[in-house]
Amino acid sequence: MTFLEALKRVLVGRPMQTESLKVAPLGRWVALGKLSSNALSSVAYAPDEILLTLAIAGLSAIHFSPYVGLAVMVVMFVIIASYRQSVRAYPGGGGDYVIASTNLGPKAGTTAAAALLIDFVLTVAVSMSSAAHYLVAVFPALQGHRAEIAAWGVVLLAFVSLRGFGRSRIVQVLPTYLFVGAVLAMLATGSVLAATGQLGEAPSADFTIVPEAGFEGGLTGFFGALLLLRAFSTGSAALTGIEAPTSNVQQLRTPRARNAGAILVWLGAVAAVLTLGTIFLAEATQVRMVEEPQRFLRLDGGPIPADYFQAPVLGQLASAVFGPGSLGAVLILLVTIWVLWTAGVSTFKSFPFLASHLATDGYLPRQLRRRGDRLGYSNGIIALAAAAMALVLLFDAHLPALIQMYVVGVFVAFTLSQAGMLKHWKRKFVQTPDRQVRARIVRARLLNLVGFLLSLAVLVVVLVTKFVHGAWLALLGIACLYLIMYSLHRHYEEVDRELAVDFASETKALPARVHALVLVTSVQKPVLRALSFARASRPSKLDAVAVDIDEDRTERIVEDWDRLRLPVPLTVLASPYREVASPLLDYIKSIKRDAPRDLVVVYVPEYVVGRWWEHLVHNQTTLRVRTRLHFEPGVVVASVPWQLSERTHGRALFGPEAPEGEPAAAEPSSGARTHRDAAGPPADGPAPTPTTTAEDRP
Amino acid sequence: MTFLEALKRVLVGRPMQTESLKVAPLGRWVALGKLSSNALSSVAYAPDEILLTLAIAGLSAIHFSPYVGLAVMVVMFVIIASYRQSVRAYPGGGGDYVIASTNLGPKAGTTAAAALLIDFVLTVAVSMSSAAHYLVAVFPALQGHRAEIAAWGVVLLAFVSLRGFGRSRIVQVLPTYLFVGAVLAMLATGSVLAATGQLGEAPSADFTIVPEAGFEGGLTGFFGALLLLRAFSTGSAALTGIEAPTSNVQQLRTPRARNAGAILVWLGAVAAVLTLGTIFLAEATQVRMVEEPQRFLRLDGGPIPADYFQAPVLGQLASAVFGPGSLGAVLILLVTIWVLWTAGVSTFKSFPFLASHLATDGYLPRQLRRRGDRLGYSNGIIALAAAAMALVLLFDAHLPALIQMYVVGVFVAFTLSQAGMLKHWKRKFVQTPDRQVRARIVRARLLNLVGFLLSLAVLVVVLVTKFVHGAWLALLGIACLYLIMYSLHRHYEEVDRELAVDFASETKALPARVHALVLVTSVQKPVLRALSFARASRPSKLDAVAVDIDEDRTERIVEDWDRLRLPVPLTVLASPYREVASPLLDYIKSIKRDAPRDLVVVYVPEYVVGRWWEHLVHNQTTLRVRTRLHFEPGVVVASVPWQLSERTHGRALFGPEAPEGEPAAAEPSSGARTHRDAAGPPADGPAPTPTTTAEDRP
Repeated sequence: MTFLEALKRVLVGRPMQTESLKVAPLGRWVALGKLSSNALSSVAYAPDEILLTLAIAGLSAIHFSPYVGLAVMVVMFVIIASYRQSVRAYPGGGGDYVIASTNLGPKAGTTAAAALLIDFVLTVAVSMSSAAHYLVAVFPALQGHRAEIAAWGVVLLAFVSLRGFGRSRIVQVLPTYLFVGAVLAMLATGSVLAATGQLGEAPSADFTIVPEAGFEGGLTGFFGALLLLRAFSTGSAALTGIEAPTSNVQQLRTPRARNAGAILVWLGAVAAVLTLGTIFLAEATQVRMVEEPQRFLRLDGGPIPADYFQAPVLGQLASAVFGPGSLGAVLILLVTIWVLWTAGVSTFKSFPFLASHLATDGYLPRQLRRRGDRLGYSNGIIALAAAAMALVLLFDAHLPALIQMYVVGVFVAFTLSQAGMLKHWKRKFVQTPDRQVRARIVRARLLNLVGFLLSLAVLVVVLVTKFVHGAWLALLGIACLYLIMYSLHRHYEEVDRELAVDFASETKALPARVHALVLVTSVQKPVLRALSFARASRPSKLDAVAVDIDEDRTERIVEDWDRLRLPVPLTVLASPYREVASPLLDYIKSIKRDAPRDLVVVYVPEYVVGRWWEHLVHNQTTLRVRTRLHFEPGVVVASVPWQLSERTHGRALFGPEAPEGEPAAAEPSSGARTHRDAAGPPADGPAPTPTTTAEDRP
Repeated sequence: MTFLEALKRVLVGRPMQTESLKVAPLGRWVALGKLSSNALSSVAYAPDEILLTLAIAGLSAIHFSPYVGLAVMVVMFVIIASYRQSVRAYPGGGGDYVIASTNLGPKAGTTAAAALLIDFVLTVAVSMSSAAHYLVAVFPALQGHRAEIAAWGVVLLAFVSLRGFGRSRIVQVLPTYLFVGAVLAMLATGSVLAATGQLGEAPSADFTIVPEAGFEGGLTGFFGALLLLRAFSTGSAALTGIEAPTSNVQQLRTPRARNAGAILVWLGAVAAVLTLGTIFLAEATQVRMVEEPQRFLRLDGGPIPADYFQAPVLGQLASAVFGPGSLGAVLILLVTIWVLWTAGVSTFKSFPFLASHLATDGYLPRQLRRRGDRLGYSNGIIALAAAAMALVLLFDAHLPALIQMYVVGVFVAFTLSQAGMLKHWKRKFVQTPDRQVRARIVRARLLNLVGFLLSLAVLVVVLVTKFVHGAWLALLGIACLYLIMYSLHRHYEEVDRELAVDFASETKALPARVHALVLVTSVQKPVLRALSFARASRPSKLDAVAVDIDEDRTERIVEDWDRLRLPVPLTVLASPYREVASPLLDYIKSIKRDAPRDLVVVYVPEYVVGRWWEHLVHNQTTLRVRTRLHFEPGVVVASVPWQLSERTHGRALFGPEAPEGEPAAAEPSSGARTHRDAAGPPADGPAPTPTTTAEDRP
């Protein structure tokens, strides 16, 4: 225990007060930096995935990439427009979960929440896998260790989140702006070079692409269209995280809704410029990417070099613009890793936050509600890390595979949230008499309707084009999580219903009398302490009970008991099957039969030991007895701990031993405040002598 | 729980009463059969091991086998003679452990016990490995599965012992006599055939043996002598189990000592005849055995058949005498398997019995003392099975390897026991004035001295010749077990010393007052039940305590509390670090500072749930609080269980609800037996209203 605690202190640090949670609200620019790392970091992999998908149909197909990128951006702007309506409607902070459950009921809300949770897990897995890819681009010696790097990245993220690092605003904001600045600089330089005809070629420009079987004719026919849609749905990975400003409204400075709306627009603008710029520049520098380079890339008709490393698009662009291995190229890679890391950190805030929200509403175990020593929701952090780690290891940090599962959750949540908004505006419309306001509601509703239809369309496209490639796994994950959340909620509800207090008619009857039992397993100090504590609570009836599981031992107990001359009778229970719990339970049942209104309190001495192995050799009987007694209604188990090797028993326990008789005198023996008398004396039984100090001297 | 319990019932059967343990004492012949299976079953492998060891020095060396066998038998008779003295001295039943610890002190006793325990484990491993060897001889198709067979044998032994099968006397006695009869019949037939010149040859008679490197000259020189000694110490495996009559004296009919002595002699005689007869017949039928047949056996100068299976000696003799594959040969094999099984069963009694004895003396965990449902010492049985299983799997049921570890423990125990007897007789001699008795003591002492010297000599031989081959592992096992037993005993002793009651001066002071706290985590029925139970015990002071770890929740609790209009004040404790236990502990400490003689009882509501996963989502806070409170002296934790889905709370708990006022009237409100008054009313504090029924109606 102590070693583990010390370890925890070293790793996690000293606990922090809840007070430290209160921070100043975020200004627009800080908020933009802080809340957009997730959305913008997708520039690191979304263009790659579009190119990879199109490359299946060969070289001619990848020229469609700008149109695919444009389509993704159009969807993004529609969704941003409808989210602006959501923020206006829920200025107090309404994530997809809140909007869906408020307007469409708990089932839709739970589905949206499950979808978001699954997508958060994928965000971490994808970000770290992508970061590992970039790291390998910087340090080629790491090739072949991408899965390990990504896994360690997840561990490090969890550690940093548990420790509560990165709470500083500059650390949250800087990487985003650095990344945006660096990529913009690269795009600008590239454009200038292209305009002057000096733009170099990407490292992969000389390769040709062999189309996969069935796509020899390029993007034609039904399957060509399907591939185009698949490229679109894969590229939609760029849309994850754009809901962050909506679900974090409460962190913003007032007027919150307006600030959030502005941030959303800025976020969309920056994302569009970066994504489209990257895709155009990739087209200009002739980046060639395929999923299996050795199989589908050719150099002058022959195979490509065996050790060819397919760098990510941003890396290839940086090489083309700033020159291979130049400082500028390395900086682009490093800053991308940083922004991916920051996206991971922010997801390690969003997931536990949503999970704690769900736990508060009774959809997840209550442990997720608890803030750890450093104010992070520790259990949520650990759960996220475990799930992301499992994904990274299962898919070997292979981005194209992970991306197939991605986006499903986001569009499920988008769609449900927009549907919720439609319901919201409908209700509002009915409640509003003012015509002008009504007109505004109609406009908002129209925007949300477009958003809903588009989200739904994209969701269908995503499911159709990616289902067999991995989306089914994401759906399965969402369904399982939904089931868990649903059952848990039903359980909590049942329990709450059962435990609810009826304030009007709650019976305040108290048990008539207390019948105390002391379990005697040996005549040793812990038992005597339990006995003296039991006597101190002055029960109506007090029995010492020994269970006869071993003749010799029982005989010794009876002898010792007599020698002590205690005023408490010792009852020995027969135990033909050498068991402690059953005879004791039978005895308690007989007591309850005779006096059903009595409360039975069983005092059980327990050893408190220090070393781990000592647990194995103590308290085994007590544990078994306590477990059994637990299931018996109306029985209280009072464990009287004996701290082993305490060396200071007896006296120290009750303070310095007072001179004889003094304590009794210290208590008023007059009838003042004789509450107890009204209760009537115990009705029967060998009630213990009740003096408060020493007694029973011959 | 219920499923596991049902499974246990099916596997183990219904529990048996302790009464059934009482059985009639054993007559001589029954006892001989029952107690000698272990010793006699070694005929199944001891001759083999002698031959295998000698074969290292080639064909000429194995002709020394009769002399080696004779030497082993001489040692056996000396040891039997000295054991007869032990039995006479300890007619109440004295195993090696008792004799060593009584006379030489606990360290020697512990060593002897550890050695015996290790040897019991080896007995099981060796018996089952040997039985697997014989089973393969009967069903050649099983070849290559010896380790699995032996392992399943151990599992089956454990199951049978847990279930308490084989308690019937006939089952314990029959296999031994059948085995003795069958082998004697084989030896007699073989002798007659040999005398008439019709004795066939063993299946391996045609082979020649290639000596190992260094032994080309046969058994000569220093290494030759060493090999001879090694053959002797390996053959001493025949001596394990001969102490069984001594350590089970209490099972015999009176006069016990004399009966035990007679059984010892008979056991020795039968063992000698069987072992020596087997070795002589093996010599006569030219049995050829080596550890690696393919490497060291040759047929007409060339290699032996690749699929040659080296049958055990008894199997080869049976083939030679009754003809290969004949009914007689198969019967010999089957009956040997049965006796090996019986030896295993009896070891599964001896080990747990010794372990429970050691546990009673505080040398092993007390759990080993407990008899299971079917009266076997379940935990001891499981421990033995686990250890034997580990050995079988580790050594792949390879007998020559297991045998190297065997015997060490037995001779450690023999030597210590004989040394103890020397001490015993010395003390007796001093105490005895009678000259005639003194002469008898001197004779007994002389016998034990010879036994001691011989045991010690054999132990030295065993250790020297087998050390590197495996005896070191046995020694290490004994040493580890000794250390565990020693530490555990010291721990138990320390605890006992600390907990011992001083009958003369034990203070019988009771805590002055009881300060009860009820932990309020929500205003729900379990908390109200805890509160009503706390009030029923009429403490001097009663506080409801809520820890503020979540503002909203705390507010709700305070509101609900006010609505209930309970006569108990609610104290809210601040918790800057969102922790329940620490603020509560601080509060309790402040109470104890103000009133050090008070007893603090914390009532904690606990949920009793049914399904396993419900444990994960309930009681987490309670568990943490209880663990922390455990370490605080003078604090009693009373857990008030709430059986979830009980549906019958409140009323049913205290029996059928009585009409208003009735229960109060049922109790005498007069001053009869007013013990409690003498204690004085509670000194101060917001003591609860003490009526016994409904109250607080507006």
